[in-house]
Formats: sequence, C-alpha cells, structure tokens
Amino acid sequence: MTELKNDRYLRALLKQDVDKTPVWMMRQAGRYLPEYKEVRAQAGDFMSLCRNADLACEVTLQPLRRFDLDAAILFSDILTIPDAMGLGLYFAEGEGPKLKRPITCKKDVDNLIMPDPEGELQYVMNAVRTIRRELKGAVPLIGFAGSPWTLATYMVEGGSSKAFTKIKKMAFCEPQLLHTLLDKLADSVIDYLNAQIAAGAQSVMVFDTWGGVLSPRDYKDFSLQYMTKIVDGLQRTYEGKKIPVTLFTKNGGQWLEAIADTGCDAIGLDWTIDMASAKARVGDRVVLQGNMDPSMLYASPERIREEVATILASFGKGGGHVFNLGHGIHLDVPPENAKVFVDAVHELSPQYHL
Amino acid sequence: MTELKNDRYLRALLKQDVDKTPVWMMRQAGRYLPEYKEVRAQAGDFMSLCRNADLACEVTLQPLRRFDLDAAILFSDILTIPDAMGLGLYFAEGEGPKLKRPITCKKDVDNLIMPDPEGELQYVMNAVRTIRRELKGAVPLIGFAGSPWTLATYMVEGGSSKAFTKIKKMAFCEPQLLHTLLDKLADSVIDYLNAQIAAGAQSVMVFDTWGGVLSPRDYKDFSLQYMTKIVDGLQRTYEGKKIPVTLFTKNGGQWLEAIADTGCDAIGLDWTIDMASAKARVGDRVVLQGNMDPSMLYASPERIREEVATILASFGKGGGHVFNLGHGIHLDVPPENAKVFVDAVHELSPQYHL
Repeated sequence: MTELKNDRYLRALLKQDVDKTPVWMMRQAGRYLPEYKEVRAQAGDFMSLCRNADLACEVTLQPLRRFDLDAAILFSDILTIPDAMGLGLYFAEGEGPKLKRPITCKKDVDNLIMPDPEGELQYVMNAVRTIRRELKGAVPLIGFAGSPWTLATYMVEGGSSKAFTKIKKMAFCEPQLLHTLLDKLADSVIDYLNAQIAAGAQSVMVFDTWGGVLSPRDYKDFSLQYMTKIVDGLQRTYEGKKIPVTLFTKNGGQWLEAIADTGCDAIGLDWTIDMASAKARVGDRVVLQGNMDPSMLYASPERIREEVATILASFGKGGGHVFNLGHGIHLDVPPENAKVFVDAVHELSPQYHL
Repeated sequence: MTELKNDRYLRALLKQDVDKTPVWMMRQAGRYLPEYKEVRAQAGDFMSLCRNADLACEVTLQPLRRFDLDAAILFSDILTIPDAMGLGLYFAEGEGPKLKRPITCKKDVDNLIMPDPEGELQYVMNAVRTIRRELKGAVPLIGFAGSPWTLATYMVEGGSSKAFTKIKKMAFCEPQLLHTLLDKLADSVIDYLNAQIAAGAQSVMVFDTWGGVLSPRDYKDFSLQYMTKIVDGLQRTYEGKKIPVTLFTKNGGQWLEAIADTGCDAIGLDWTIDMASAKARVGDRVVLQGNMDPSMLYASPERIREEVATILASFGKGGGHVFNLGHGIHLDVPPENAKVFVDAVHELSPQYHL
C-alpha cells in the first residue's frame, strides 16, 4: 500500500507529535454538499448509493476536494448490519431509517442471520477497497460501525425513536433476550470492522448514538459491556500498523472514565462537556476527539474561529486531540463555513504543538 | 390556610427530618390515567382544560386519589407564558405544541407584551387558588414554569425541535437579541411564579427541558444565568413559610455544581446520573429530586421495587431526597405500575430515616 502523505490523524490517535491538530467532520460526506446531492440523485435511494462502490467512493472523496481534512471516512450507514441480518432497511422520505421486520420476540432474535462481511456485506468492503485505492495515500481512511445498543434500538423500535419505549421494555422485562441480541450484534460488529480493516480501513470508530438515553448502570450493562467486547475483539494491528479505535457515545460525557476503561484509543466527545475537564478526567489514558457544537457552523466566520480557538485553548498544549464536531454536520450548513472551521483548526493549532 | 396534613415533601426540601422519603411524579396528572382522558374529552382541547380552573383542579387531584403521593403539581403547561405574550399557542394532534407567530427578529422581541399574571394569565392563578382550596391541606401544591431558555426554544423554533437550528443560529449570530428575549422571559417567569406563590403554591419548580442541548459555556450563558435571575427574584418566604425552589435541567448532570451555585433549594435529576455521585458532588448544598428512568414503569412490580431500592440505597441515609421519575411519566404506562412505584418508595425508605 502507498505510504500516507498526511498521517497527522493517525499520529494524533497514537499520541505521537504532530505539527497541527488534525481535523475531520462526522458526516463530512453528505447532504450539505451540492455535489453529494447530484451523486445521490444519480444513485437513486440512499442504500443504492451505499451499495455502489464507485459512487460511495466518489461521495467519500468530495469533502476532501473542498476542505483540508486530515481523514476520510467510509460513506455508509450504521444500519447495514441490521439490514444484512434480514430486517429490511429502507428510508422513508423525511422520516429517517425504518426496518420492515423489527425484533419483537425470542424467535426473531434466534432467527437473525450472522452476516458475512464478504457476503451480504461485501458491498461495504468493496467500498472500503475502492476508497482506499482512490485516496492514493492522501489521508487515512476511517471505517465504522454502530454500537450494539444503538443498532438494537433501531432493530427493536423499527426505526428512530424518541422515548425508546420498546427497547426499554425489553431491557427491563426481558434483559436476557436483549443481552442475546446485543451479544450477536457485538460479534457481528467485530467481524464487520475486522473485515473493514482487512479491506483497508486504517482506523475504526464505533458510534453509540443512543447510549446516552440510559442510566449509568444500564449504560454499562447494555451498551458499554458490548463496546468493550468489540474493542477486545478487533485487530488492533494490521500488517504491522496500529489500528486505533475510537468510541463515541453521544451524551456520554458523564461516563468518560468507564469508556476509557474499555481500552479504546480515543473517545469522541459531544459538545456538552468542556474539553479541559474531559482532558483532566481521562486525557492521560485516551485521545479526545471533538467537540464543537455542529450548530456553530451556522455562525459567522469570526465566531467559528473564536470557538475553534476556545476549544484548542481548552485542550491546551500537547498531542492527543483530534478536532471534530460534537456530532454530524447539519444538512443545511453552508459548505464555506465548514471550510472556515477546518482552516481555523490548522491555522490556530500550531502554537499548541511547539 | 389549613395546616398541611402531609408535609413530608416540604420538610425534605428544607432538609428537615422525615419518616419516609417523599415521592411525586412529574406529569402525574395526565394521559396515562383513563379518568384524565375523560375530563380532557369533556374540556375539548388541552388549553381549554388548562383554562378551566375546576377541570384543571379535578385532573390535578386525580392521581392523589389513586396513589399515596406527597405533593400535587398544578396542571398547566410551560407554554402559557409565550401564549400570553401573544405568540398563539396551539396543539397540533400528535405533533406537540406549536406557536402561530414565532420570534424571527428584533421587532418580534421588542413587540412582546409582558403578561400580567392576574390578567392574561389569571386562569393559571385561578387554577392554583382552586386546587389549593380543594386540596384541603392534604399535601403541598407545587407551582411551575419553564426556564427562559426552554421557553425561548419553542418561541424561536415555533414548536418542538430536534436540532434547535433556529435558536442556535440566534445564539451564535445574534446573541444580544437572544439575551434580550431571555431577560424578558426571566422577568415574566419571576412575576408568574411569585403570583403562583401568592395564589397558593407552596413550592415552585423551573423546568429547563432543553438546557442539555447546549455546550457548558452556552448553558451558563443562555440558560443558567436566567434561572439564577429567577431564583434571586422569587419570594422565597411567603406568609412566614419558606417556599423552596427546584431547578431541573434535563441532561444537566454534568453541571450540578453550577446549578447548585444558583442558590436553589433542590435540583431535579434525570436518570443519566447516579444518585450517589450526585449526592457526593452537591448533596451538602442542595436537596436532590429524582431519579428513576420513567421507562422503568413498563417493567414488572418486582423490577420496579428493585430499582426503587437501588436508588434509595444509592442516596443512602439521611434527608435531602425527594423521590421522583427522571422525567415525566410516559403516557402508556399502566397506572397500577405507578402505584407500585409510589408504594415502594414509602415501604422501602423508612430504614434510611432512622
């Protein structure tokens, strides 16, 4: 494989010296870019775009042409696994993801097929291989998956949820059934991410979008336990290179110590926690990724730069920080504001790496 | 006024000895009760129910007939103030609250009328007076209001929101305009709660449902600053009796110390924080209210009792705990499970008050 031209992101994740703080944006490939919308229209629906390696590669690379990003992230969806397990993923316009055959009982859990990453999910691996090749070593490629708990919420609720009624009923009334489901999902995520690593992903991230709706005890029991299993099951070195793993629990700021205990390399932070206090709590053990409010990209260039400066100062001197938004970029953000953000991180950060 | 027959809730808020941990439920009057649905159907729409003092009183008292609750809470809505300010509140079926004339610019903010609690909002005070009288001293009556930030989210977004795009744009691009709005709201909430106190509320609570979507700095600037102003502006003693004030920021577990600094008497906790750690952080300064996941009421009686026992043990010995759910009771909870919850608190807590 080609040597990396820009390895700032991987170096930061391994706590090695960098010249500037690396930066990328969650959902950096997406609907806020007009060129994305063109490719999406060409592909038809969202999943057709994910299933087409060339088009998935094209949209993955689009933000890198506009912005000086330090990493690319596979264009895909966390619900590829539930879909491959036979639940029938589709996207209802304006309503978010839906599953045709949600989990309702033990039989549904027992009947789940364990997807083969180079079988039902080969389209994802093909996208990883294509993107890695087409990146030509410009920046590293991040692979990803949803956390077992987060995947289970969609699989039990049948789609997005506000109150998580069904899965919480299952958690409290049939915990063993939920544990069986989560364990299957953890095994599947391990296979899936290891296959992404074999296909070319140089770092992986687990998105636990909904862990934050749980109590501390339930979070540890139903979400963190299975992310720990994933961290333990991943190939942390591939072809002689370390593969860093980042865990991100939205609204998980209260549980950073426990997340660091998993043995992950980095923790993704949303914007509800102060970077300085996160660093004081776990910064000697893990790298921190984040944590600007994505809504800040609605503000003026001056205000965006000011916020970047504040977060950089809050983290302070030294390595171990990957700049990012605290959640995915909003779909109505002006792309020029994303450029202001990315450039500000690079312009304002060298003083912290002297 | 009649002497209170059950003052356990007020005693706990004042850190006085109690025989058992007091308990009430946020949204204890509401749609999970069939008798509520009957009165609601009789009233017509939701706001007609709020505006009718006799019917508002009836639904306030309904849960007290079923459950051994230690407090009643005024049946009303946090959006009475924006409505009285002229924004035109209505409830679209299945869509939650909407405002016909949301705030879009400086003129809209300048044009807001400051509602007179005994004028446009007199229907609320009439409800307070009626409920206080009809309670006949059984338990204390809690008055409430929304926090300025939370009210402002509805006023700027025009209703419920997921990403809070419009108000965050305002916060970042026109902070002075938002501060003007928040300051007006704080003044209005002070008048409104003081009028509720004069009308008979024996304790007041401020609901900051959406403070948790802000960064720590923005939370302090746009939400907590105005709750502090409210705490300072409230009549903390009325006719010789202390009027305790409780602040509740959903997803505010990371900011307990700052919330305690407002000088409030109690902090409402959602279920994402462990009671023991909350007590360790601020329990010497404020009373803690909470914090069972409302979804636990979907579980079996045994599981509900187990969870109550866990939270009681987590708080441990001594006063300063008001048991509650960590958010409003869900509308599809079986009423008998709510009874199990309330009874469990009373049955299992005396050992902590010896």
